[in-house]
Amino acid sequence: MALDPMTLEKLADISTATITTVLVKKGLRNVWMRGTRPLRTNQPRVAGSAFTLRFIPVREDVATPESWASPRSSRAAIEVMPKGCIAVADTMGVTSAAIFGDILCARMQQRGVTALVTDGVIRDVRGVLGTNFPVWSQGVAAPPSITALTFVGWQEPIACGGVAVYPEDIVVADDDGVVVIPKALLDEVVSAAYDQEQMESWIMSEVVRGEALLGLYPPNTEAQARYKEAVRKGLTTFKRPKPKGPKQS
Amino acid sequence: MALDPMTLEKLADISTATITTVLVKKGLRNVWMRGTRPLRTNQPRVAGSAFTLRFIPVREDVATPESWASPRSSRAAIEVMPKGCIAVADTMGVTSAAIFGDILCARMQQRGVTALVTDGVIRDVRGVLGTNFPVWSQGVAAPPSITALTFVGWQEPIACGGVAVYPEDIVVADDDGVVVIPKALLDEVVSAAYDQEQMESWIMSEVVRGEALLGLYPPNTEAQARYKEAVRKGLTTFKRPKPKGPKQS
Amino acid sequence: MALDPMTLEKLADISTATITTVLVKKGLRNVWMRGTRPLRTNQPRVAGSAFTLRFIPVREDVATPESWASPRSSRAAIEVMPKGCIAVADTMGVTSAAIFGDILCARMQQRGVTALVTDGVIRDVRGVLGTNFPVWSQGVAAPPSITALTFVGWQEPIACGGVAVYPEDIVVADDDGVVVIPKALLDEVVSAAYDQEQMESWIMSEVVRGEALLGLYPPNTEAQARYKEAVRKGLTTFKRPKPKGPKQS
Amino acid sequence: MALDPMTLEKLADISTATITTVLVKKGLRNVWMRGTRPLRTNQPRVAGSAFTLRFIPVREDVATPESWASPRSSRAAIEVMPKGCIAVADTMGVTSAAIFGDILCARMQQRGVTALVTDGVIRDVRGVLGTNFPVWSQGVAAPPSITALTFVGWQEPIACGGVAVYPEDIVVADDDGVVVIPKALLDEVVSAAYDQEQMESWIMSEVVRGEALLGLYPPNTEAQARYKEAVRKGLTTFKRPKPKGPKQS
Amino acid sequence: MALDPMTLEKLADISTATITTVLVKKGLRNVWMRGTRPLRTNQPRVAGSAFTLRFIPVREDVATPESWASPRSSRAAIEVMPKGCIAVADTMGVTSAAIFGDILCARMQQRGVTALVTDGVIRDVRGVLGTNFPVWSQGVAAPPSITALTFVGWQEPIACGGVAVYPEDIVVADDDGVVVIPKALLDEVVSAAYDQEQMESWIMSEVVRGEALLGLYPPNTEAQARYKEAVRKGLTTFKRPKPKGPKQS
Amino acid sequence: MALDPMTLEKLADISTATITTVLVKKGLRNVWMRGTRPLRTNQPRVAGSAFTLRFIPVREDVATPESWASPRSSRAAIEVMPKGCIAVADTMGVTSAAIFGDILCARMQQRGVTALVTDGVIRDVRGVLGTNFPVWSQGVAAPPSITALTFVGWQEPIACGGVAVYPEDIVVADDDGVVVIPKALLDEVVSAAYDQEQMESWIMSEVVRGEALLGLYPPNTEAQARYKEAVRKGLTTFKRPKPKGPKQS
Repeated sequence: MALDPMTLEKLADISTATITTVLVKKGLRNVWMRGTRPLRTNQPRVAGSAFTLRFIPVREDVATPESWASPRSSRAAIEVMPKGCIAVADTMGVTSAAIFGDILCARMQQRGVTALVTDGVIRDVRGVLGTNFPVWSQGVAAPPSITALTFVGWQEPIACGGVAVYPEDIVVADDDGVVVIPKALLDEVVSAAYDQEQMESWIMSEVVRGEALLGLYPPNTEAQARYKEAVRKGLTTFKRPKPKGPKQS
Repeated sequence: MALDPMTLEKLADISTATITTVLVKKGLRNVWMRGTRPLRTNQPRVAGSAFTLRFIPVREDVATPESWASPRSSRAAIEVMPKGCIAVADTMGVTSAAIFGDILCARMQQRGVTALVTDGVIRDVRGVLGTNFPVWSQGVAAPPSITALTFVGWQEPIACGGVAVYPEDIVVADDDGVVVIPKALLDEVVSAAYDQEQMESWIMSEVVRGEALLGLYPPNTEAQARYKEAVRKGLTTFKRPKPKGPKQS
Repeated sequence: MALDPMTLEKLADISTATITTVLVKKGLRNVWMRGTRPLRTNQPRVAGSAFTLRFIPVREDVATPESWASPRSSRAAIEVMPKGCIAVADTMGVTSAAIFGDILCARMQQRGVTALVTDGVIRDVRGVLGTNFPVWSQGVAAPPSITALTFVGWQEPIACGGVAVYPEDIVVADDDGVVVIPKALLDEVVSAAYDQEQMESWIMSEVVRGEALLGLYPPNTEAQARYKEAVRKGLTTFKRPKPKGPKQS
Repeated sequence: MALDPMTLEKLADISTATITTVLVKKGLRNVWMRGTRPLRTNQPRVAGSAFTLRFIPVREDVATPESWASPRSSRAAIEVMPKGCIAVADTMGVTSAAIFGDILCARMQQRGVTALVTDGVIRDVRGVLGTNFPVWSQGVAAPPSITALTFVGWQEPIACGGVAVYPEDIVVADDDGVVVIPKALLDEVVSAAYDQEQMESWIMSEVVRGEALLGLYPPNTEAQARYKEAVRKGLTTFKRPKPKGPKQS
Repeated sequence: MALDPMTLEKLADISTATITTVLVKKGLRNVWMRGTRPLRTNQPRVAGSAFTLRFIPVREDVATPESWASPRSSRAAIEVMPKGCIAVADTMGVTSAAIFGDILCARMQQRGVTALVTDGVIRDVRGVLGTNFPVWSQGVAAPPSITALTFVGWQEPIACGGVAVYPEDIVVADDDGVVVIPKALLDEVVSAAYDQEQMESWIMSEVVRGEALLGLYPPNTEAQARYKEAVRKGLTTFKRPKPKGPKQS
Repeated sequence: MALDPMTLEKLADISTATITTVLVKKGLRNVWMRGTRPLRTNQPRVAGSAFTLRFIPVREDVATPESWASPRSSRAAIEVMPKGCIAVADTMGVTSAAIFGDILCARMQQRGVTALVTDGVIRDVRGVLGTNFPVWSQGVAAPPSITALTFVGWQEPIACGGVAVYPEDIVVADDDGVVVIPKALLDEVVSAAYDQEQMESWIMSEVVRGEALLGLYPPNTEAQARYKEAVRKGLTTFKRPKPKGPKQS
């Protein structure tokens, strides 16, 4: 199921850092994938519903060439991925064999898949970078998946980077990594995160003006009043001002 | 499906070391679980069909007390385990929360389950040892599963200790650890392994007599002839003789 | 500050497994030390107030022989440990140099220290075992602390096995490892844990009688009523019955 | 022994990803070094015969200043490296001391060495980058080798990144990492890899045209026929077309 | 205490590689932080006095919102950091929660702090990069510190990346990582390092001219004489010449 | 070369803990193998000259059955091991395949080899325990060496558990693990270690009498005088007295 466009637009402005802060306040501490990082710097932030993939260790009697034409292959899974989803692949953290190369990434891109997220690795990295298809992974490896992994199914609950991912959970990925928002919590998380981003951009503007941290971050009653006044006057912007320190002059 | 009694009896005399040697000759190198070891020393060797269990990382919004009465709980899985199976639990190697304690082990024992194998850990270790229920695990931890893990299902293909396990694969466990025999290969593996155990017991008797290794292990043509002669004369026993070195006098 | 004798007596009957279950219900998930295990099997359970010790990596210009007579040495710390405390040593998980050997353990025992807990290792293991002084550690290593560690102070907040320990927190250690109870929560934890131990011993007796798990563990309304009846009739004992499975006959 | 120029030229067009696929079909699964990655992005692919170097852990009584003038030093090894070889250094994966800095890399470059590959690290990274000498390593570290390593010899069989390397094996390194081709298999691997690269570039062109994966990758009989037709018509190019997805417009 | 400007200027020209070489000659082998690397490439080298920060694992009963206004917070520590110091934060190597984000980095920059060094990670990485505030860390993570860490104090002896750091030790950081110079050794280290840098730049010029390594690096009596002659004639420059190998033409 | 009997006898009374203390005073910090521990508890201390063995990762084209009859096999190495040596096997820490099983251990025992030390693992553990042949290893694994390792030679310098071992170095192993004494330092190490053992046994007797640590351990001038007096009077014994603490009564 695709996310509605307005939510997607909002999510594009909310950092994974902010989302984790909102989720920990709701008691969810384990929502950020360990080890999984963007393939390129300055990859734009992405958001989408999770389409899960699951791999287990290879066994030589199962991983025969005949099995490649199996109806339960990663190729078959790609052909049923819906537009706008984010493919999330559980490899149990195996980093010595790649799950996908440039051809499969190109096909996902053709189908309108938003991004690939995995706690494993990809191959043909120059080709994948050439497609501009966004990938978050543990890096790259030359060997094909069949040297170490067998694909066993899709749209099951999985683990990825130590985090539980259920089909249709919302995945957000940016420079700080990948977080998972439980589907049922999406609306309240987006709302609270939006408010927090706005307040932090005001706090940053205060810091840039030279204000000290105590009482400001987190804001005490007086600072909260000043913030509300700034909001009322339309003086806050959602984007954080870029600080200019004494070093940059 | 339970193993037939004759195969079970044979497997009781075949070490996991020998099984891995037979399997590598068939091209299967990844059949021994890393990290998983017997809970007590001198635990007898066990064999049985795998009954698989799968856990993923916990998420606080899912792991509510209400979920404990879920029809998809580890307790429900235990109540459908067949007599003579070996429960094999995939925890993705998590060792900071225990999947089962003494009560669940006691119930598995009551139901005739042969053993528990996991790449995770168990708790109430003194109580579990008290039941004599055989366990292979990465050790023990006090915290209950819900501090780190969620149970998601049974009889799926899983990973355990880096090895693929499919439901009904044959699991053999002893002091050297746990190995998985693909179901389709059971008969030929048992047959070849039985032959090898017999020959190695003869080689050991030769070593104990003071013979040098070269030409004997692996045996060259001359040694093979001597071995065949020993078999013909009924001079071989299946059990390896205990060597007595100069140190033990 | 020593624990009062009645609380100590109760803690001797409560497993670390049960304490972690009680604490996770209060929202505390990270209270069990990773990697730290009993030096010997069947070491009795211990409990006491934490007396913390802190080590950092060695630097050759600081770890001079002169420094050994420093007023800030581990020897000085031992001489101020109160009777009944448990020494808890933070080594940042270093396992290639031992913090204490048999002489320092013997001295702690002389002073009435209850036990030593560390995420590092000890040396002279045969001598330490000879003293019967209870130790929980990551194992043993021959090298003295000065090959890798410098002692920097005592009774500071520390990390041990990934868990925060504040001076005077209550430490309980048994076969399942070591848990920390925040000082302020001691009374309510002991009370809730005592109740749970009693109920689980009744559940175990039911399992041993052949009862199935569903509805029993966790108990539904009907099972809870039966439990209360058993308590009323004085039919429950605190100690868990030892199950006897079909394997033991 | 230098590789013949034609083989070198072909290897420049064959990715390490393709080589690993060809080798796994011949039963060789462990040919890709774990942990070893290019020092800079967009480093050109290199190939050459392995010239092996071996380090073991340092011991203070051996690593004296006098030993630096030893005839068995890494400097002596560099002075006998043949033109066109790839230096492959086994450090047992030590990453806290660097084996070479900018001066030794500059000297290797002067001698016509093609590249340095190691499962350890290098130092003076800015200087090394300045030389443009290609390096694959686990990264960088400031300390010199003598803080942790001793050089023991060259042109022995070694381990590098978990892979066996024998002197004169062929080493190929690109953005996906480093692979080793056993010397005896070079010709058949190059031939098979060349064919596969060509077919995959055709498959990529089909994917870019919008074709689905099933039946295409791997190609079924019909797709193979279409591929052969394309080859016959000279419609295939060796270089993979760059996909253009809906995101790039 | 700020470093005097002349020492600072000299340190800007001395690489961490050279400092570790000088320190190992004085018997100090453990001065380079493992895992800690520059946040951006081509970050300029920095030097300053260490201002230490210490974190321990979080515990949910301590990490309450009320605690954020504590006088012992990381915010309070930042407000007492002196101009020109380098903040060094001990997180016990935790990489799943970030200690600081863009707001706190901006404030440190405002206060004239030279850089942040940690064996943990930071968040809001794009924002932090935007400030140009120099950071050495193990990378980035989205979650805030309170998901895994509690701040406990400043200006204590700490561990960072496996290295002991005492308040006021001198920290130097560049592309090869971060090294710590014990305060008492600063002058002699700077002096010896300066001499070594000069000699190595002469050796590099010799290598670029085509000289072989043996007798040159390390220099024998004859090479030392040639070096002294070059110094006398003013033919040495402090900056290393960039080698031009046969590959670059 | 076998050790002379008197040195061997002395080494039997000197703990590895004491040897590491003596060696660190001579500046040798890295002499204790990480990860390598005794196969059984209460294994007697052993000492002998190192006979080194070296393994590298397996490659399927090399590890053919024909290679087993190679003159460069581990079997050939065993047949040239001298009486009284300690076999030390470098497996680069691989723990998923065993280097030796009960047959090869029995043969080493027959040849008078004192013990086996490895940073890898062994198999047929029950059989090996049955021989009483002493083993220090990282544990056990069922798979034979050829699933992961290839033997490449003997009596070369090796790494074992992170420690350099040269042929003929002296190896001592006990409950605290395995240490290496450089051959050239043997006599002075034995002498200094013997003195230290004697003094520590006196210190232990003082601690058991109730003496406090400060001034005693390490001993100040007054304590040294008392120790000398005790030696003069023949009141010291080499064996440490067993402490009796308040817990043992």
